Amino acid sequence: MKHFSFREDDPFSPIRYEYEVDRVLCARRTKYQELLVFESPQWGRVLALDNVLQLTENDEYYYHEMISQVAMHAHPSPQEVLIIGGGDGGTLREVLKHQNVKRASLVELDSEVIAVSKEFFPTLSSSFADPRARILEMDGAEFLAESGEDFDVIIVDSTDPVGPAEVLFSKEFFAKAATALRTEGILVIQTESLHFHRDFICGVQQKLGEIFKTVDLYTVPLATYAGNWWTFSIASKTHDPRDLARSHDVPTRYYSEDVHRHAFLPRSLYNKMMGED
Amino acid sequence: MKHFSFREDDPFSPIRYEYEVDRVLCARRTKYQELLVFESPQWGRVLALDNVLQLTENDEYYYHEMISQVAMHAHPSPQEVLIIGGGDGGTLREVLKHQNVKRASLVELDSEVIAVSKEFFPTLSSSFADPRARILEMDGAEFLAESGEDFDVIIVDSTDPVGPAEVLFSKEFFAKAATALRTEGILVIQTESLHFHRDFICGVQQKLGEIFKTVDLYTVPLATYAGNWWTFSIASKTHDPRDLARSHDVPTRYYSEDVHRHAFLPRSLYNKMMGED
Repeated sequence: MKHFSFREDDPFSPIRYEYEVDRVLCARRTKYQELLVFESPQWGRVLALDNVLQLTENDEYYYHEMISQVAMHAHPSPQEVLIIGGGDGGTLREVLKHQNVKRASLVELDSEVIAVSKEFFPTLSSSFADPRARILEMDGAEFLAESGEDFDVIIVDSTDPVGPAEVLFSKEFFAKAATALRTEGILVIQTESLHFHRDFICGVQQKLGEIFKTVDLYTVPLATYAGNWWTFSIASKTHDPRDLARSHDVPTRYYSEDVHRHAFLPRSLYNKMMGED
Repeated sequence: MKHFSFREDDPFSPIRYEYEVDRVLCARRTKYQELLVFESPQWGRVLALDNVLQLTENDEYYYHEMISQVAMHAHPSPQEVLIIGGGDGGTLREVLKHQNVKRASLVELDSEVIAVSKEFFPTLSSSFADPRARILEMDGAEFLAESGEDFDVIIVDSTDPVGPAEVLFSKEFFAKAATALRTEGILVIQTESLHFHRDFICGVQQKLGEIFKTVDLYTVPLATYAGNWWTFSIASKTHDPRDLARSHDVPTRYYSEDVHRHAFLPRSLYNKMMGED
């Protein structure tokens, strides 16, 4: 294998992205998906699932800091955090940077993603050893429906909204998340590219808006994801997530207080996107 | 030809981008470069020079609005505007949206780019017919050195900083531009991707900083350019380009007053980039 390409005829991408491969470290079919780890000359180690790039060692910090730190700073005191998906451990690492977190539960359907991260991505999986981390190998939607537990922050760090992850973008799921969130609770969901998946993002925003007091959208530019202008939908019960409820005192490479405020989509673009201008 | 790929072994891109091609409309070698126009199923008509995508009909407005409208709104009264490069006419179109512009001079080295735009890109080349447009087919650096004219806004809308365009990123060129700018003058330069060309951008910012009072950087997320997190370096003699000196009253699809302010890189990222944090 000399090159890795995002899956052919990907309905989510009108551009084909190809990466040079120095060496394949792991390629196997798990119970749920095709799993591939390779060494790239430019990006370090790369993880792909079902031929879609999930992370590269060299730029994963943009995604993992941004999916985690915005809610972790918009909430005044996040103690119980739930991560759905995120089997690579990057989001868990970001959440556990916060000393006030008492427990971070990671609910991942595919245990082999966790195993592969432990083997090949030490800078991401280091957080699995934290005593505050609880790892559950099960379906995130089922966990939310059945556990009866409540949380300050819920982060949905899933694959693309097709196949097993589709349910995580339904109104039913958002309603369950709202029930599981405490009074000041905040929900964050990775919601694809603003260039390529605008209708999908609008749908998520509308569904969230029927349930939560405050719904918003923030972005990060990602070189290695198809469509690159990556979005996170954020829904909050009490606080405006554009505001920091706490000062920024954890080590980060991209996230900062001004990046937090800057990341939210300008109102004019938001209204245009939603057809409200 | 079924696919168009950015040039192989591009030193500027650690990802290879490939586009589906429905039909090639024009492929020829000009005096300066390989010129290609094709029809894409997803992006409309596409222009490539030396195997690097220059624009697509469907998303060119992001780039052309942002290279033009920020300076056009940060300057209190832009009457004389110089565009170096920009042979497709998109930047000229944006500049001429402003009624107070008395003359917009476009200095393009390769006249065949202008001819091809007139033939295949009517929504970009329409502005060539404006009586306020002056088209000069010559080297932009030479024009600036020899013409003795002065301008309110100078926009450098060039290809990548290799080959004929390299001179447009030199300190000597920036000094000539500063001389040609009036007291309230503003210079804008397309300066590649913040993901892929950070050192290059820092170099431009440093060189500009030795000449201009205010130097800054703003960005736009572009799906179709390699590295996508596109930057514009802006240098100003009097006004802070983060501020709008005039209200926004020209039709735009992406640019707006809050997009103007939002586009500038947060200070924390700017300082990190420049190694000043």
